[in-house]
Amino acid sequence: MRLRKLVGDRFKERPSDCEFDSHALMVKGGYIKYMANGIFSLYHPMKRITKKIEEIIRQEMDAVGGQEVMFPVVMPGSLWAESGRYESVGDELLRFTDRNDSPMILGMTHEEAAVHLVREYAQSYAKYPFMIYQIQTKFRDEARPRAGLIRVREFTMKDAYSFHTSQEDLEKYYDVVYHAYNRIYQRAGIPEVITVKSDSGMMGGSISHEYMLLTDAGEDSIVLCDECGLKANMEVVENRVENPSTGLETLEKVHTPDCKTIEDVTKYLDSTEETSCKAVVYQKNMTDEYVIVFLRGDYEVNETKLVNLVGDKVHAADITPESGIVAGFIGPYNLNAKAQVIVDVTLKGLDSMVAGANEADYHYKGLNLERDCGITEFADVSKVKEGGVCPVCGKKSLKIRRGIEVGNIFQLGTKYTKTMHMKYADSGNTEKLPIMGCYGIGVGRLAASVCEVSHDDYGPIWPISIAPWQVHLCCLKAKDAACLEATDKLYKELTKAGVEVIYDDRDVRPGVMFADADLLGVPVRVMAGPRNLENGQIEIASRDKSIQKLVSIDNAVDEIKAVIQELFDKINEKVEEPVFAEDFE
Amino acid sequence: MRLRKLVGDRFKERPSDCEFDSHALMVKGGYIKYMANGIFSLYHPMKRITKKIEEIIRQEMDAVGGQEVMFPVVMPGSLWAESGRYESVGDELLRFTDRNDSPMILGMTHEEAAVHLVREYAQSYAKYPFMIYQIQTKFRDEARPRAGLIRVREFTMKDAYSFHTSQEDLEKYYDVVYHAYNRIYQRAGIPEVITVKSDSGMMGGSISHEYMLLTDAGEDSIVLCDECGLKANMEVVENRVENPSTGLETLEKVHTPDCKTIEDVTKYLDSTEETSCKAVVYQKNMTDEYVIVFLRGDYEVNETKLVNLVGDKVHAADITPESGIVAGFIGPYNLNAKAQVIVDVTLKGLDSMVAGANEADYHYKGLNLERDCGITEFADVSKVKEGGVCPVCGKKSLKIRRGIEVGNIFQLGTKYTKTMHMKYADSGNTEKLPIMGCYGIGVGRLAASVCEVSHDDYGPIWPISIAPWQVHLCCLKAKDAACLEATDKLYKELTKAGVEVIYDDRDVRPGVMFADADLLGVPVRVMAGPRNLENGQIEIASRDKSIQKLVSIDNAVDEIKAVIQELFDKINEKVEEPVFAEDFE
Repeated sequence: MRLRKLVGDRFKERPSDCEFDSHALMVKGGYIKYMANGIFSLYHPMKRITKKIEEIIRQEMDAVGGQEVMFPVVMPGSLWAESGRYESVGDELLRFTDRNDSPMILGMTHEEAAVHLVREYAQSYAKYPFMIYQIQTKFRDEARPRAGLIRVREFTMKDAYSFHTSQEDLEKYYDVVYHAYNRIYQRAGIPEVITVKSDSGMMGGSISHEYMLLTDAGEDSIVLCDECGLKANMEVVENRVENPSTGLETLEKVHTPDCKTIEDVTKYLDSTEETSCKAVVYQKNMTDEYVIVFLRGDYEVNETKLVNLVGDKVHAADITPESGIVAGFIGPYNLNAKAQVIVDVTLKGLDSMVAGANEADYHYKGLNLERDCGITEFADVSKVKEGGVCPVCGKKSLKIRRGIEVGNIFQLGTKYTKTMHMKYADSGNTEKLPIMGCYGIGVGRLAASVCEVSHDDYGPIWPISIAPWQVHLCCLKAKDAACLEATDKLYKELTKAGVEVIYDDRDVRPGVMFADADLLGVPVRVMAGPRNLENGQIEIASRDKSIQKLVSIDNAVDEIKAVIQELFDKINEKVEEPVFAEDFE
Repeated sequence: MRLRKLVGDRFKERPSDCEFDSHALMVKGGYIKYMANGIFSLYHPMKRITKKIEEIIRQEMDAVGGQEVMFPVVMPGSLWAESGRYESVGDELLRFTDRNDSPMILGMTHEEAAVHLVREYAQSYAKYPFMIYQIQTKFRDEARPRAGLIRVREFTMKDAYSFHTSQEDLEKYYDVVYHAYNRIYQRAGIPEVITVKSDSGMMGGSISHEYMLLTDAGEDSIVLCDECGLKANMEVVENRVENPSTGLETLEKVHTPDCKTIEDVTKYLDSTEETSCKAVVYQKNMTDEYVIVFLRGDYEVNETKLVNLVGDKVHAADITPESGIVAGFIGPYNLNAKAQVIVDVTLKGLDSMVAGANEADYHYKGLNLERDCGITEFADVSKVKEGGVCPVCGKKSLKIRRGIEVGNIFQLGTKYTKTMHMKYADSGNTEKLPIMGCYGIGVGRLAASVCEVSHDDYGPIWPISIAPWQVHLCCLKAKDAACLEATDKLYKELTKAGVEVIYDDRDVRPGVMFADADLLGVPVRVMAGPRNLENGQIEIASRDKSIQKLVSIDNAVDEIKAVIQELFDKINEKVEEPVFAEDFE
């Protein structure tokens, strides 16, 4: 199509409210349009990108025996009540009533719908295994949408659900999907995605993996160990801390006026964060009960670990005078507050420490948890640190990186089949519960993530496999009749040859033209200008600058197609061989 | 894929709650699964059908210069307040609040979103004309969902919006889309779809057309005139009634005990429905004000005409004693009720009539509206009848048919651009309002409608262009090793040749096999059985029974591909030439 007919504004200035580069580029490149918090419309170029991503996902899901289906966006609350999630999921589940006052919800995931679709069908073992999937709109009422398409409220997602008669069969298929997912990212041009172990959260089940695209802009922390190959989300990595023996000291209460922070105290007492006991106070969401976490001064709480431990979501505490909690001076000795107290493993083995005295302007020195407080049990609710001890190989080799989660796979077990009474008769006619797996990829987030790791200062550098167009054709001097005629002709020939072309035939300066081309990020740029045309030539350059050449106009279509093929080959070199799913076709 | 792996039950019995054949076949064929009133999940075969329909629609929209975009399903109420529709649309617009108590709605159509997407972009005349479209989930909280996918609450729809700088330009493009729509129905295998003039309803604008698939099962009434070619929805056809002069009679009040219906009265007084004045009472939705419609005894009220006249939706009246309305005896003479009174054109020119006396057990005879009631103005709120007078050519030639609306196109004018302050500068730099058109097709409804007109007692007969698979391959004796081997081989060859095959290799009786094949409605059936295989042959039969032949197994792939092509050719013969949209690419 012609660029001048493309709906959407492109502009120079970086929008002020964009933290992420991908967010800024999608806004200034005419890809997305903000409508409400976490809700966007997609312009044509982004729709073309997401369509190509969807097609890659569809091909890979079909290749492992998936059957594409479609679940509703709006579902009755009663269906979610069956699994217990109508009650258990927080405000991110959008609940409302229809015209007849029936409770309804907007689907944020579709385990319940999947079970609903197949539970009458799959009553005999002979129907197993099978996998169904959909690519559809979902809504999650996020508290803090951000970063453009990375964390939104409404999004398009591929969600797949497999059903099995044994854990072994699930694991076998889980591995097949694991590799199909690798192929999806490789084909989309981001082979650098890694897989990490993750927390299953509200999905239930035990084993789960996240696909992480490593980038400093990511919102997840990933823990790597080069020694043993550990790769995991920080929230599931056990924190192992070795506290050297420093000898027991005598417990002593000391006056610490105006020392409210850990830095104040260590400075005032000439102690260290490593021998200080820090307190962090939360409240449980359902009951508002206080939760006090004690941990070593130089560590931080991992809230996912904490939530899993206390069995409820938590929020930062609002400390009232009645609570008995003395903010700034909280410690495990002489604590007279009604609260759940959690002592983190980072304090284990510490002979003597500084801690709050639960009295304004006072701390203890020489506190020993076992001797003075009788504490011998420690929980793991802290974040591991760079250089920390790897819980697998025991070496001090942990590395921490940032990443964007671009997919996840879960072994769900029988959580949904049990609560929703889905059963099958095995070969001996005994009633059993099917075992489920589920597998998700957000389409828009994947598009934005590719942009996040593949762009320069001027715009995205789209991989040819998901680029909105393959070729960006520029007529460098539209006022020059011969130049326009030659470029028009090439446009028609390319289109006829099945090449996807965005054609800029505007009468504008080359600078304007190139700025727009950079923003659209089309991988192959073809420039036709009067000077080169005089020599019967046009210029081909790739957006990533790896290719730049002059070719004969007579041979242009073939040359351009060869460059497109070259870019596809570069991507396909990094795509692993497909793994097939026996018993699924 | 193999039929035995296809998720979804097929069964023999017609489900008891299905009025429409298409609904019954979709349920018993494993196409759809009821989740809640007007909300369905789609099984794999239906998803395959809708995907093909979507691709046909997409190609035709792209061919007329459409740019595919994507609007949100969930939109802020404030956006709909801009156009006034947040208030004006009834309960079918689902309104709710998000976690921050912000008013939100579920999109049932996207005029507001379309204007929102382009109003900053299209501020200069040079950007016009353009068309954007999407294919997405919509939700309309229908009071009475019914007929499976024909009238649902959640549905997938293609909605397109064009923007113009003049009415002429809109009309030119409207005509282009008109033909693109014809091509869509023709390519989907239902060339019998006709276009009728329609009421614009809540969309606004003046000129609009509906695409109607004629079938007795349809819920819309369509008026045709063979004499002049009139084709229109009943709700926009002017009712012209010629009442012959019968002479003035004297007004006389008569006792009509136990005569509550028009039949009772005509029988008791030996009069006719054609000379009776009937009353139908409604209440306005917003104010509950009564609306009394008087019309000739043998006609019926058209509620769409009535709603357009009174400017509010109406419901059947709840007549209270205080209202002054005497149910069963309502008439225009001596009426002492607080109500809006509408006298329909069917009473115009009637010299003498029987009418209620607004008193229990009494009627009037010889009533003349002008002489006795001073009534000289008549409104048109009645339905035309079979054999009635055509308002275009004046002949008594009207025919009434039933149809399913499978698409609609509207000339919206400036309704949305005006209320939402979308403007552009014309070539003289004067501010103007863009003129819009919009164009909709429901994907699921189209699929169900095809089934409604293309099925037999045993299942759907899918046109090859939208069939879930092209070929249904049956191994007639799976226990016979040679038969299974030969059919397996053919299955692999066909798949390799790019043919879409559903393969039944179950060890079941041919009767079971054929019943399932009938329910899946795949257009080409290939049967491999031991007897024919002994002669090196297999049987090919089309689902519509037009083709049946034995062919050599050695040549089977080519023969099958030829049959597929033949079926495509049959459809394509009826597809009109494409019309191009200048200025849109």
